Amino acid sequence: MSLTIYGEQLNSRLLIGSALYPSPEIMKQAILASGSQVVTLSLKRQNPAENSGQKIWQYLQDVVAQTNGKLLPNTAGCKSAKEAVTLAKMSREIFQTDWLKLEVIGDDYNLQPDPIELITATEQLLADGFKVLPYCTDDLVLCQRLYDLGCQVIMPWASPIGTGKGLMNPYNLETIRMRLPEATLILDAGIGKPSDACLAMEMGYDGVLLNSAVALADNPVMMAKAFAQALQAGELGYVAGVMEQRQTAHPSTPTLDTPFWHQNS
Amino acid sequence: MSLTIYGEQLNSRLLIGSALYPSPEIMKQAILASGSQVVTLSLKRQNPAENSGQKIWQYLQDVVAQTNGKLLPNTAGCKSAKEAVTLAKMSREIFQTDWLKLEVIGDDYNLQPDPIELITATEQLLADGFKVLPYCTDDLVLCQRLYDLGCQVIMPWASPIGTGKGLMNPYNLETIRMRLPEATLILDAGIGKPSDACLAMEMGYDGVLLNSAVALADNPVMMAKAFAQALQAGELGYVAGVMEQRQTAHPSTPTLDTPFWHQNS
Amino acid sequence: MSLTIYGEQLNSRLLIGSALYPSPEIMKQAILASGSQVVTLSLKRQNPAENSGQKIWQYLQDVVAQTNGKLLPNTAGCKSAKEAVTLAKMSREIFQTDWLKLEVIGDDYNLQPDPIELITATEQLLADGFKVLPYCTDDLVLCQRLYDLGCQVIMPWASPIGTGKGLMNPYNLETIRMRLPEATLILDAGIGKPSDACLAMEMGYDGVLLNSAVALADNPVMMAKAFAQALQAGELGYVAGVMEQRQTAHPSTPTLDTPFWHQNS
Amino acid sequence: MSLTIYGEQLNSRLLIGSALYPSPEIMKQAILASGSQVVTLSLKRQNPAENSGQKIWQYLQDVVAQTNGKLLPNTAGCKSAKEAVTLAKMSREIFQTDWLKLEVIGDDYNLQPDPIELITATEQLLADGFKVLPYCTDDLVLCQRLYDLGCQVIMPWASPIGTGKGLMNPYNLETIRMRLPEATLILDAGIGKPSDACLAMEMGYDGVLLNSAVALADNPVMMAKAFAQALQAGELGYVAGVMEQRQTAHPSTPTLDTPFWHQNS
Repeated sequence: MSLTIYGEQLNSRLLIGSALYPSPEIMKQAILASGSQVVTLSLKRQNPAENSGQKIWQYLQDVVAQTNGKLLPNTAGCKSAKEAVTLAKMSREIFQTDWLKLEVIGDDYNLQPDPIELITATEQLLADGFKVLPYCTDDLVLCQRLYDLGCQVIMPWASPIGTGKGLMNPYNLETIRMRLPEATLILDAGIGKPSDACLAMEMGYDGVLLNSAVALADNPVMMAKAFAQALQAGELGYVAGVMEQRQTAHPSTPTLDTPFWHQNS
Repeated sequence: MSLTIYGEQLNSRLLIGSALYPSPEIMKQAILASGSQVVTLSLKRQNPAENSGQKIWQYLQDVVAQTNGKLLPNTAGCKSAKEAVTLAKMSREIFQTDWLKLEVIGDDYNLQPDPIELITATEQLLADGFKVLPYCTDDLVLCQRLYDLGCQVIMPWASPIGTGKGLMNPYNLETIRMRLPEATLILDAGIGKPSDACLAMEMGYDGVLLNSAVALADNPVMMAKAFAQALQAGELGYVAGVMEQRQTAHPSTPTLDTPFWHQNS
Repeated sequence: MSLTIYGEQLNSRLLIGSALYPSPEIMKQAILASGSQVVTLSLKRQNPAENSGQKIWQYLQDVVAQTNGKLLPNTAGCKSAKEAVTLAKMSREIFQTDWLKLEVIGDDYNLQPDPIELITATEQLLADGFKVLPYCTDDLVLCQRLYDLGCQVIMPWASPIGTGKGLMNPYNLETIRMRLPEATLILDAGIGKPSDACLAMEMGYDGVLLNSAVALADNPVMMAKAFAQALQAGELGYVAGVMEQRQTAHPSTPTLDTPFWHQNS
Repeated sequence: MSLTIYGEQLNSRLLIGSALYPSPEIMKQAILASGSQVVTLSLKRQNPAENSGQKIWQYLQDVVAQTNGKLLPNTAGCKSAKEAVTLAKMSREIFQTDWLKLEVIGDDYNLQPDPIELITATEQLLADGFKVLPYCTDDLVLCQRLYDLGCQVIMPWASPIGTGKGLMNPYNLETIRMRLPEATLILDAGIGKPSDACLAMEMGYDGVLLNSAVALADNPVMMAKAFAQALQAGELGYVAGVMEQRQTAHPSTPTLDTPFWHQNS
């Protein structure tokens, strides 16, 4: 049940963020408990008093090394293709990886991806050798474009980042899965509960990226384990083939008029 | 993370049905894979050609013995308190257990429990020494009555049996949990997907009883494992404390105007 | 498009409450604007400083007279069959009507009807000559019982009273409509928006009873008109036959490869 | 309660399509019954045996003249900016109007607008003097772009065209309304029931465009009236100020322990 991203084989289908944890130590424990091997990080990270800049980065590098996984720099907070491309290049240099979670924010209220700027930035970064994982809305045509441009991984949102609203538009998400059967689809942003992640996997998604749902839980380490199990449950459920919904009730115990010990006499 | 039902401690929070499987062998494997230690069975079971009546019962007894668990006879298909009480007494004699999943069906279309007959039957059976697990609707007052009568376990439905519609009315289910904090609450009927079971556990339910969702899956044995994991994920998530939903987006990476390596200079 | 309740023909399918308005004058205007001819009132009404007890009742009688309609006393706040029956008899004497909206509350949190006490009170009141309109939950078996006892009108809830949550469980409500085709079904409690009332009518319900949604609107008089139109829209929609939902998109303009002016050449 | 579109004041907030009706006569009656003054039409219309091409157009022109309204040519079925622009110019010439419902389809399954091609076509057509009403997805950034380009009217979808699924993503639709307070917002595509249209208006939308919901009803003429009323109900409801949803029940009749006639003694 491994996930392959740009040729890398990973043991977990969970991708996890590194922000908003109560402390670096809890972050480390939560990441390790999650089983995730892909950890996102932003260069534009807000400066925590006790752990500013490079220290946090070195700390994270150590954590990722323990997972035997990959650091996934992101361009969170960028509002134009140009800004994102610039930051991406800095990230590549500093973090020594061509993997990139590409975010270009288009609105300050819902913090949604800007579809136009996202396409522009994706084109430039792919041409420059990046392995782009674009964070996008649940717009099929946008996802198709990004895939056609050469992104092997597409990451539509479930709902606005940090809301914990879960899967706002299951119809759109199912349509994307159906129409892009070859793409690696990671559901990104808006996941609130383990059951949300489980549902995404039951739809046939290849993975889930989340941050707040773990970092803001009362117990982030335990919640990380909960998500790890929820993804496995959902994946198993998808492979095992979920029963069809039915409009009318069906007895699980079809009955005859007489109990069996009378029938057998 | 064990579940206690009428003083019995169980290793799994999943209760499972024994009907509708493709074959007895697959049923056995699915039950064992689920980790469940409580298996429901109806005396009024439809007569399968190759495994009629007592044979099936003996087979099931063996399976339950392997789980080190309990057989839970049910009164599926009964339409009156009187009929259910009669069948319950037969079941106790044959299966040598005073545990009983009490079903009294009130309508042929949605196969819902009849609240009035259910209360009548519950009173009589509790007085007669049964340990009653009543299958009921998601009506708080009905659940409260059953609890006040002495049922330690209450089993509201998620949706009509066999529909796989999942949790039709989360508001009602959450209200029951909040108002009956001491009762052992098992969600029963209508579960379709592992994420449904996960969601029930995230709400603080003590367990889930299902049958069709496993038996009618393309691969019942794998689906049984999926549900086992989904329940664990949901329970962990409940204990770990799910984040609050928020109406507006929040960046998981709060950003400053300048990347940290500039800030640090 | 008239509604018949216990032999009375009414011009409106809206039944309206008389509580929570900013002032008696606004209440009067709102009731008149709604077109409703059935106004509910409780004897156990909280005593407004400026309009205590009998004054409010006389005022309401005048309003109802202007609608050429009926006063519908209710037993809001009663918690047992006995209490409700006593209050019903007082109401009949004072208000000179055998119509009764029967409420027996079973829980202080969700203020839901108590199905057991409701049946007991219904039996006694029908036997005593009352024309009972029972407020009940969306439980099909309970609705069927009340209908079988002789209630010509059944009033299931949409959601808990005063929440404005709208139709919590459309499946249950649709099932009740389908299974009780002869009963007059009024959706009662929980309506928040005109679209909720419209949806109820599209399902084939015979009417809607509401109070908070009008009384707590910024402009109760205008909201009363909005609901009057919404009910008419929903009823027309039901009679006109709503299109089937479809899973896949269908062009409303099926196109050929060439525009028609080329086709016609 | 009039609607202004590109300076034209209209008496109805409903825009209606001219396809899929059982007959031209029923189409005419339905349009007149709807009260709509804006009727969409496609040059690429499928050729009905009895009413091919120009005949249908002349017939529609007559109907629109009777409404004292406007014909709104659309580019349904176009799959690229280029194709849409070409068709738009033909439409302007033939129908003698610079109004245009701009559709550029991006996927054959969900028939959704292509956000990229849509922007390209919008730019060209606005520059060429068209009054563009773009049909788009419920993507806030896309809507913002179209508005910034100079479209006074924006028409996001409710759900895929012809599905009748109603408002798939209320969160997105509410966000667009909140973030674009000055734009004229018309909900377009996916409307199935009058209550869907009512809900859109309650959200503060300025109008609704639909076709299948009326044309495919059992009785299109009656359904047209139903929608006309539903829009008015929703608009009134929006202006009147819908009550806040509440999580817990609130009695509409707050009660004291004693009835008022005792209190007054």
